Formats: sequence, structure tokens, C-alpha cells
Amino acid sequence: MAQKITPASIDYSRWYTDVVQAAEMADYAPVKGCMVIRPYGYALWENIQQALDKRFKATGHKNAYFPLFIPESFIKKEAEHVEGFSPELAVVTHGGGKKLKEPLIVRPTSETIINAMFAQWIRSYRDLPMLINQWCNVVRWEMRTRLFLRTTEFLWQEGHTAHASADDAMAETLRMLDVYRDFAETEAAIPVIPGRKSDTEKFAGAVQSYTIEAMMGNKWALQAGTSHFLGQNFAKAFGTQFLSKDNQLEHVWQTSWGMSTRMIGAVIMVHGDDQGLRFPPRLAPIQVVLVPIWKSDEEHAQVLAVAQDLLGRLSSEFRCELDERTEVSPGFKFGDWEMRGVPLRVEIGPRDVQEGKAVLVRRDMPHKQNKTVVAMDAAVPETRRLLEEIQKNLYVQALRFREENTFYPANYDELKDAVAKGFALAYWCGDAACEAAIKEETKASTRCIPLKQDGAAGKCVYCGKEAHEKAIFARAF
Amino acid sequence: MAQKITPASIDYSRWYTDVVQAAEMADYAPVKGCMVIRPYGYALWENIQQALDKRFKATGHKNAYFPLFIPESFIKKEAEHVEGFSPELAVVTHGGGKKLKEPLIVRPTSETIINAMFAQWIRSYRDLPMLINQWCNVVRWEMRTRLFLRTTEFLWQEGHTAHASADDAMAETLRMLDVYRDFAETEAAIPVIPGRKSDTEKFAGAVQSYTIEAMMGNKWALQAGTSHFLGQNFAKAFGTQFLSKDNQLEHVWQTSWGMSTRMIGAVIMVHGDDQGLRFPPRLAPIQVVLVPIWKSDEEHAQVLAVAQDLLGRLSSEFRCELDERTEVSPGFKFGDWEMRGVPLRVEIGPRDVQEGKAVLVRRDMPHKQNKTVVAMDAAVPETRRLLEEIQKNLYVQALRFREENTFYPANYDELKDAVAKGFALAYWCGDAACEAAIKEETKASTRCIPLKQDGAAGKCVYCGKEAHEKAIFARAF
Repeated sequence: MAQKITPASIDYSRWYTDVVQAAEMADYAPVKGCMVIRPYGYALWENIQQALDKRFKATGHKNAYFPLFIPESFIKKEAEHVEGFSPELAVVTHGGGKKLKEPLIVRPTSETIINAMFAQWIRSYRDLPMLINQWCNVVRWEMRTRLFLRTTEFLWQEGHTAHASADDAMAETLRMLDVYRDFAETEAAIPVIPGRKSDTEKFAGAVQSYTIEAMMGNKWALQAGTSHFLGQNFAKAFGTQFLSKDNQLEHVWQTSWGMSTRMIGAVIMVHGDDQGLRFPPRLAPIQVVLVPIWKSDEEHAQVLAVAQDLLGRLSSEFRCELDERTEVSPGFKFGDWEMRGVPLRVEIGPRDVQEGKAVLVRRDMPHKQNKTVVAMDAAVPETRRLLEEIQKNLYVQALRFREENTFYPANYDELKDAVAKGFALAYWCGDAACEAAIKEETKASTRCIPLKQDGAAGKCVYCGKEAHEKAIFARAF
Repeated sequence: MAQKITPASIDYSRWYTDVVQAAEMADYAPVKGCMVIRPYGYALWENIQQALDKRFKATGHKNAYFPLFIPESFIKKEAEHVEGFSPELAVVTHGGGKKLKEPLIVRPTSETIINAMFAQWIRSYRDLPMLINQWCNVVRWEMRTRLFLRTTEFLWQEGHTAHASADDAMAETLRMLDVYRDFAETEAAIPVIPGRKSDTEKFAGAVQSYTIEAMMGNKWALQAGTSHFLGQNFAKAFGTQFLSKDNQLEHVWQTSWGMSTRMIGAVIMVHGDDQGLRFPPRLAPIQVVLVPIWKSDEEHAQVLAVAQDLLGRLSSEFRCELDERTEVSPGFKFGDWEMRGVPLRVEIGPRDVQEGKAVLVRRDMPHKQNKTVVAMDAAVPETRRLLEEIQKNLYVQALRFREENTFYPANYDELKDAVAKGFALAYWCGDAACEAAIKEETKASTRCIPLKQDGAAGKCVYCGKEAHEKAIFARAF
């Protein structure tokens, strides 16, 4: 039961796989590159879905569902799109015992099939904006896979919208980027840097891609969500047109944006420590675990009765679990639930019962600063207060960690040093050649050009030419 | 905008397709046999999901996610299973630009891949019961497709459980059948007949299949949900074993059960009429539509202000929409929302505003009995009362319709007559030859052997041999 987790400091990659499997978040499937999301991992995904879906609906989007299969000819209609996705496609060649006339692609993303429908549904400016979201699975053939971070099949949501003007579409692109930022910060307690992707790193078929980038526990970056301004690229490929107020036939302007089960990997890597997972309360599958402690049968009955009573009071407000197992010790349970990342533990022993008290133990603090003894009557409000504090504290810890590991190199030597230690924010001239050279020599890519710039000009950290923007350079998952 | 719907009495099949498309529930996709679920249809599905998911969790099940792709060799491990599903499979032969060593099947159902994981996860009786559910898409190659009812890809949930004994698994099979019955009756306002499938009609790989059968508007049957007792068939094929309390290695006993986007088709066909859809309030995407009526600009402003105020008061409790369109008339809007099945319409005109009143119009009653004038102050409680009444009334109407169209033939001539008009409940000896002959001659299949039997014996309606159970015979979708 108690599984050994490789310390993150020894081998981060092993730590990650150990934690994911020990906590029963996910498992490798007997299908190349695929994962099984186990109930504990899926419960986190359900909480992510709820928090995002609420935000999508509040910004006027509606969910729909488009086919898994895309005719091969559709994928080929947008030149950059097919070039980008070709190496990753899974192809259905046979159906119902027969060879298909045209092979079907298992969707890697749905811009093409959705445009085929938008082209039928959109007639006039009255139909715009069309604001659609889809929750589904997608497939991108991957050689080197890692649970949640890079798998052949993954779950995500993909937003697809159509607008009457470029301005409207750009506003939507940035609105949804900000929805992702807000979600990451508020719900996942992950500080992120919203920014523009370089041309090299942008989505295949987009005019401009935006991203939120987060720093993981090993100081690498992870792209946690993307929002694309597609311009009229797909609209032109599929003939998605509308009659404008001036009675002109025009191509729509589009966006697409996505967040996936990768976010689960981000939550694990941003907050986890050598003891295992640490979940932000707002997303945690179990927010509070109650561990009864007893020696005699008489104590067992007393303690359980009190624990069940408290469970009843807590359950109307929080996601709780009472660990009634008799085959393992309290000490084992403490370690087990710490490893599983439950934000708050309530210990109830015979003395606590006598004194009408309980011990609340926070997962986000070091062992000697993590306990609060509370009167049983105050357990519910105190739990509420502590969960809110843990949520904030995890964000603060992650932000401090990122700030401590972000550097501001003035020249290339400093940059090389910086990207070996964390994020580097440095002037970049925008030239793909500089970007490629840096990546080749340091393995660090441009993560994004942050939206927030100080407006000053400087010199490109690589070539020394004048540069007007700074970019984040970092190693990335 | 106002699309003609073929009357159900003229051509039921056309009526169905017309309604689904006119109400923007779904659309044919440019991929053979596939559908696009449009926002209005998907919103209904989300309400179905929520109502089911709550019930699954309340009965101890947890959601998880298993891969879309199943190695071909897995499908072949259970003999009946492969025989049943072979003709319907979609096969991925290429991935990442290369031909695969082993073709991958796009899941038609997940018993096999889930057993491959259960075999790893289940060790001892302490791990049992394992109660898992999955929300996902599945693919079954279909030649003749019909939106929601029969499409190559569809959405569903599939429950998969493992137990320590046959009794436990059988209890689970019937428990989940009853969850489906409760859902259908309470949420979808659809009366159903829970029963056992004949051996001919059972799931490929099950020992015993159970179903809930409902009568559609054309008096045909629709299988609306199924629950299967799998025995140890898949456990033996995949070596899913556990160490019992007596320290014996035994194969687990299993169940699987599913409900799909077909249920949307059932809701449409049970309740719809010649004016279009009629949704039960508990599942309706929009429960209340407010239609303001005005002539002058001054009236427009006054009426809209009152309507917006009421919208605010109703929205905290109900799913509402205010139809502010200026380009179409109130009369058009009435017909439009009736066609879309909104259970309750609130009309607010200048005189209503003056008198502090509103007119509530029910979708479930004939045109002259459907209006209630209420004081604006009473609009919220009256809406609540009417929606509850509509929910009940739709159920009562559907039940009465089924009862009026269910017959009790004593001999084969009567049965032939009965199945041409509706459901026939008749003694059946259980012999597959009688079942096949009846189907061949009348196109009616055994829908189920109802769980509820009167215990008497009689003579098989076809062969005259002694029979101990009655079966429902009917034409079916």
C-alpha cells in the first residue's frame, strides 16, 4: 500500500510518475501512448470541467458535439494546418468490415469539421457571434508519452467561435485567454504568464496564438492553455461566410481555444512535494479527510460516532471522506492521505472526544506548523477558514517559487545560465533564427512574449539587434 | 425561420427528422452515419447527464476514463462479444504516418479494455465491489442511420462493475436497471417497462440482459437503457481474479449498463406532437420563455422593463430565456417556442403591464385550456406549480397513450393484429424459434419479458406449448 515515491530532487521525472501512480490518478493503458484516468484523477478533472464550464457559459458560450471522425480531405483544406498535424494523425481505413473510400482521421482538433458545419449554419450577421464549446477526446500520435502531459489520446475542451470582424475575434481570443488565467489562478492556485506565442510556436493554422505559461516544480515551463486568433484562414478554406449589415458576403473571423487534461499534470507539478500531491482545495477531489484514532473497542465506537457526526456536518459544504479502515494504523493513514494531496486532515482521538476537540492538520505547511486544535463546535467554520487559507497559500508559494526562479539576463551568457536554473525574461528581436539558435544551444524555447511589457526597448539577448519586447525563455514539457 | 414540420400522422419518420432539424437539436454531419449535436440538443443531454450522474454517485459509483482505442486482440478474447460486434467495428490501421503492427478498434463498448485494467487493479475481496462509470463516445458502424436513434458515433455512459459473488452482481444489475427506470419516469416523464431480454436480443457477451422499454408516438418500442449481468465471461477471458475471504483465487462477477444519446430521441418521440417538441420541464434546456408584446416604442420600453424584471426573478430558479427579437412578430415567436418544446411561455403585453399581470401558457395542453392569467407578484410560485404539473401531466399522457395501445392477445391472430397497432403482452414459451417466426411474419420482436408477471401459466401465443411468462412483442426502432 504505502508506495515509495522517488524524491523530486533526485529524479523529477520518476517523482512525477511515482506520484501519479501511487495516488491512483492515472495508469498506463495496454494501448501504446494511451492512459487510463482513474477515479481519483477523473474527479479532479470533473472539478476542472465544472469550474471552466461555468466560466464559458457566463461568457455566452454553448456546448455542442461534433463528430470524432474527420474526412481526410477536410484536414487538407488549410495548408498550415495539415502540415502541422500530418505527423500526428490516427487514420481509420476500415469500417463495418469494408475498406473506406476516403480514410477518416480521428480528430486531433476540430477546426475543420466545425467549419464545415458553421458554413451551413451561418447566414447573416444576426447569426454572429457564434460561440461554441465542445468537451471531448482528441488523438495526436505521440512517440514519447507521459501521463497527463503527453498522451496519444487526451480529454479537453475546445472553444470555436465565429465573428463579424477581426476586432471582435481578437477581443474574444484575449477574453478566453483571460478566462484561462483566472481559472488557473483562482481554482488551480497556479500563477501564470499570459502571452503571445512566437510564430514558430503558434498553432498550425492560426494567425496568432496566445498561451498561459506556468512554472513547474523542476523550474521548467508548461503551456497550460491556449487561445488562437484564426483570422479568416479556416473560413476561407471552408467558405464560412455571412451577409453583413451592408449586405456584403464576407468571411467570418474566428478563434479557437483549448485546455486539456494536461492541466492535471500542471496541478501535480506546481504544488506537489516529496511527500506526494498537494491539491488546491477548490479542485481537490477530497477536501477534508477524517481520521479516527483509537486503541480499545470502546474507544473505537466513541471516536467513530463523533467522527461520523462531524462528517455529517462537514459534508453539506465540503467534499469529505472518513477513513474507517481497521487494517492500517493512523500513522499509515496520515501518510497515505498526505501522499494523495488532501488539503486538510481532521484527527479525532479518545482524548479529543473527551475534551470536545479535534485536530486540524494542513497539507500545505511544514510538519511543525501545520496543526490547529479546535473546539468540535467550531470545526465547520474553522475548516472553511483553513481551506480558504490553504488555497491562497498554495498560490503564494507557487508565485514566490516562480519569482525566485525567474531571471533577467542582459546578455547571452547570462541567459544560458538563467535557463539552466529557471525562467529567463529577456529582450528578443523576434527573429526566428535567434529563437532557433537559442533552442539548439540551450534547449530553452520561447514560451511566450508576455502581454505585460514595460514599453522600453533594448537589445536582443542573442543577436544584439534592437528589440521592443521581452520573451520568456525556458525549458518546457 | 418558421419551418414546416410534416404531421406525425402523415409520416412519422419525416416528422421526427423535421422536428430534430427545425428545433436545431442535431444535424447530419458530412461524415457518413455521424451527427452533430447542436447546442439545444446538447443542453438536453447535459441535463440528462446531470440527473443520471447524481444517481450513479448516490449508488456509490465513481467516474473514470479508459482509452478510445482497443487492441484488436482484446475484442477477440470473448467469443460471443467478438461475434456480436465484428460487423460494426471501425478500425485504425495507421498512426503517426506508419502502419500499425496491431490494428486498433475504436471502442464500440469498453468491457474488454476495462477488464484489462480491472485485472491489474483488483487483488483481493477488499477491492470489491469495484463500481466504475465512464461518460464517453463510442462507435458502431451503422448502415441506416437516424439522428440520435442510430448513428455511427454516439455519446453514452457505460457502467462497469466487479463483484465477489454472482448474487452481488445480479443485485447490481437490477439496481442500475431501477436507476434507469426511475430516471426515465421522474426526469424524462417516460413510463417504461423493465424486463429481461430474450437470449436472441441480449448483449453480446452477457449472461443476461435487462432493459427498459418505452412506447414511442408511433406505438413502436424503443430500448431506452440496458443493464447486463455478465457473469464471469469477461473475467475469465481477461483473468480478472481476486483473493476471497477464504484465501481462494476466484474470478470476479461483473455487470455493465448503459444509456445513450438515444434517450434524446425517446424524449422527442414520446412527447412530441404535430406542433413540434414538448419537453418535460426537468430536462428542458429552456423551461420558461418570456415573450414581450408591444406596438409603440413607448410600449416596447415599458413591456421590456417588466419582462426583464420578471426574468431576473425567475432565473434564479428556472432556466429562462427572454425573446427580445424585433424582426419577428409575437405570433411567430409563440409558434417557434412551441415547436422547440419549451414547457411554459410567459406573455407580457401593455395591458398586462398596466394590470400588473402576466399570461402563462402551457405547452402540454390543447390551445383553449392552456392559459392562466396571474398577478405579476405570483408569477414565480405559479411558474413553479405549473412546471411541476406539466412534468406530471406529460408522464400521465404518455402512460395513458401506452395503456390505450397495449393489447393482450390470446392467440396468434390477435397478436398479429395487436403488433400492427401497438404493444402486445402475450405468453411466450421462451423458444427462439417462436420468437424468430413471429418476427419474420410480423416484424415484431420480443422487447422484453417484464419483471412484473402475474405468476399464472398459459399457452405460447405462437406454438401453444405451456408458457410461464408473458413477453412484450412490438415493432421497434
